[in-house]
Amino acid sequence: MDELSPVALRLREGLRRLAKAVVVITCQHDGRRFAMAATAVSELSMDPPSLLICVNRNASLYAPLSRGADFCVNILRSDHSAISAACSGKAKGEARFAVGVWGATARGCPVLEDAQASFVCRNEQAMNYGTHHIVIGRVEEVFVEGEVSPLLYADGRYLTLGAPAGAG
Amino acid sequence: MDELSPVALRLREGLRRLAKAVVVITCQHDGRRFAMAATAVSELSMDPPSLLICVNRNASLYAPLSRGADFCVNILRSDHSAISAACSGKAKGEARFAVGVWGATARGCPVLEDAQASFVCRNEQAMNYGTHHIVIGRVEEVFVEGEVSPLLYADGRYLTLGAPAGAG
Repeated sequence: MDELSPVALRLREGLRRLAKAVVVITCQHDGRRFAMAATAVSELSMDPPSLLICVNRNASLYAPLSRGADFCVNILRSDHSAISAACSGKAKGEARFAVGVWGATARGCPVLEDAQASFVCRNEQAMNYGTHHIVIGRVEEVFVEGEVSPLLYADGRYLTLGAPAGAG
Repeated sequence: MDELSPVALRLREGLRRLAKAVVVITCQHDGRRFAMAATAVSELSMDPPSLLICVNRNASLYAPLSRGADFCVNILRSDHSAISAACSGKAKGEARFAVGVWGATARGCPVLEDAQASFVCRNEQAMNYGTHHIVIGRVEEVFVEGEVSPLLYADGRYLTLGAPAGAG
């Protein structure tokens, strides 16, 4: 299962440098809540307001997403690494909500109360590619909270934002 | 043109917190070189090795990409902000290569020599959504260079990686 091709191994090494804010993607389906820490998220278009996520089809979130469940992308704060760990470890389903203060949208989608920002999305369009499921989310509601201090993941570690970059 | 909906305005505000490594996407088509600074890039699958990019259809890179041009995603180093500026300003086409040391793949795709990492991609599949063009790149070659020190963009500024994040 982990037998990666030589190019994939090099890709994985290179992606350690593609620093990213850590998010938790959440959804609710048939009364059950799901959450998954992720970095494979991209802004897409402002018109319509949208973003996209890439989810491994082995992830527990895949089943509800592939059935059209709406979802929320919550950007973690720099002191939220325990939430990321809870949402990427062996615990599944409800157990992933043991850490963090969770609310919900009117339609029941979990929202992290003190996330840096939360984007509530309608599951608008999806396709599979390789091992993954790409979902386009039409952003319907946005919450922004607190000072700017996102949790980053790079070089295999959780990091914070640093100093301004010098000119080249 | 810049008349964004209230949700789009909130989305834009929230996305300032989705910190990202800055990349320059490059391609070559009919003997002409193109480059564009971007953050709308996501890792996709390891099997096949792949990533995706989202490009505004107003960007000069759109025409070659929509004609199937292969491309390269170059992760900038923390002292490369001048390259990002050159590749996102008013200069177009060849003028964008005035800053930085540029090489090329055997097939002519520009590669930034001292990028943190460069992913040479075959233009495998694409779709339009809203104002943007989503392209899936099959990664064919990877270059990784130097210490880990990517250039970040967050809160409307160029930043570097900071200290390890504390536990939540």
